[in-house]
Amino acid sequence: MISVVLLGAGNVASHLYRAFKESANIDVLQWYSRSIDKISSYANDTHITDHLNDLKQADIYLLAVSDDAISKLSEKLPFDNRLVAHCSGSASIHDLDKKHQRAVFYPLQSFSKDADLTFSEIPICIEVLEKPNLKILQELASSLHCKTYKINTEQRQTLHLSAVFVNNFVNQLYRVAHEISDAKSINFDILKPLILETARKVQYMSPYMAQTGPAKRNDKKTIKRHLKLLENEQHKAIYELLTASIKKTHGQR
Amino acid sequence: MISVVLLGAGNVASHLYRAFKESANIDVLQWYSRSIDKISSYANDTHITDHLNDLKQADIYLLAVSDDAISKLSEKLPFDNRLVAHCSGSASIHDLDKKHQRAVFYPLQSFSKDADLTFSEIPICIEVLEKPNLKILQELASSLHCKTYKINTEQRQTLHLSAVFVNNFVNQLYRVAHEISDAKSINFDILKPLILETARKVQYMSPYMAQTGPAKRNDKKTIKRHLKLLENEQHKAIYELLTASIKKTHGQR
Repeated sequence: MISVVLLGAGNVASHLYRAFKESANIDVLQWYSRSIDKISSYANDTHITDHLNDLKQADIYLLAVSDDAISKLSEKLPFDNRLVAHCSGSASIHDLDKKHQRAVFYPLQSFSKDADLTFSEIPICIEVLEKPNLKILQELASSLHCKTYKINTEQRQTLHLSAVFVNNFVNQLYRVAHEISDAKSINFDILKPLILETARKVQYMSPYMAQTGPAKRNDKKTIKRHLKLLENEQHKAIYELLTASIKKTHGQR
Repeated sequence: MISVVLLGAGNVASHLYRAFKESANIDVLQWYSRSIDKISSYANDTHITDHLNDLKQADIYLLAVSDDAISKLSEKLPFDNRLVAHCSGSASIHDLDKKHQRAVFYPLQSFSKDADLTFSEIPICIEVLEKPNLKILQELASSLHCKTYKINTEQRQTLHLSAVFVNNFVNQLYRVAHEISDAKSINFDILKPLILETARKVQYMSPYMAQTGPAKRNDKKTIKRHLKLLENEQHKAIYELLTASIKKTHGQR
């Protein structure tokens, strides 16, 4: 049994809390938020507090707070030499106060308030400064049935950057397609199976192998027709830049 | 029972053939390809031919060939006033010879040779010149358990363009993330659940509502750090352009 004190009340904290509660191997001793209102609905479920001085002794203190808050909150914790991990993709492990045994427990997923997630599908990236803590964090992740990856700070920050490409930027391309099709009264639903299939394909095939379409074929006629259809200058610029990128990847000029 | 003669031997034709064979309501009378070798393995399964003069009488002639081949092939068909449909997202319905009853039967999906598709999830976009043919093509689609959408040429070409954004361009962003993470010896598998979740989210939520991340939040510190991490000039340009696009969509400057 691993005992955890969870700190923070945002999307990541809420998803972690629910996943922890479902595990028979994890005991959420306490949930801290400086705004007690945000977690008061859980008062019958676990010990909640907004006082750092009330924090109990636990195996792990997990900081699921915004990047900017990590440093100060870790400094204010009224104890030392205990295992304290943050959950950020981009904050340094050294943002944690050095009086602690410092670590990172980063679940790589996009956490929305409303989206229902299968937590066991989320990869957990782990970084530690004291080697024995690796095992404890791996056990915490495996109690959630998650795969774990041991990665260093530079790798984690690169992953966070890669996640912006495959999540935020990809989603913006969905948005652009939504705008383009809306302008011609086309139901966006028609594109949804293709969106899903495109994501499914790279689960078992490299993106390089999965590529198709006019840019890869260097089909100049279609590319020209598409550019003519695009009325928005920014959409046009995106089309041109990503077409050039595909051509470069696949050796066209 | 709808009788079909299928023409073409590419990915779309092969996937259509397999789906037709599974339907109790569709009879594939004949499969034509000018290169008989490509379909000869199906000789025990259906009538195959490479002679246009041998084509049998059918309810529908389906041209699943490249855009450039549609016009000539439809001209060479040795009959007139029968229902002839092409399967292209971008070719005009008028590319078909006017001696036929012309139509379009466009399955909006990315067809790879190796990918296993659930055909019933593919939306079929239908266009006809003679109204009564709409019903026949809708019946063909519903025999495959597909949803159908009646769309005109301009809408279909816009859909084809939108598909480039959500399929080819999205896949290229996967590729860029693969390059970025590979350079730091990061296992691309870590990003796969996020890729899938990003596509799943917009199945029930608009891309606008689904957006998160530094560009939407206008988190200048993170954006600056990301740009510094990017070594490739084209990757940098993609980051800047899509960040600007997200900011514009979400009213940031």
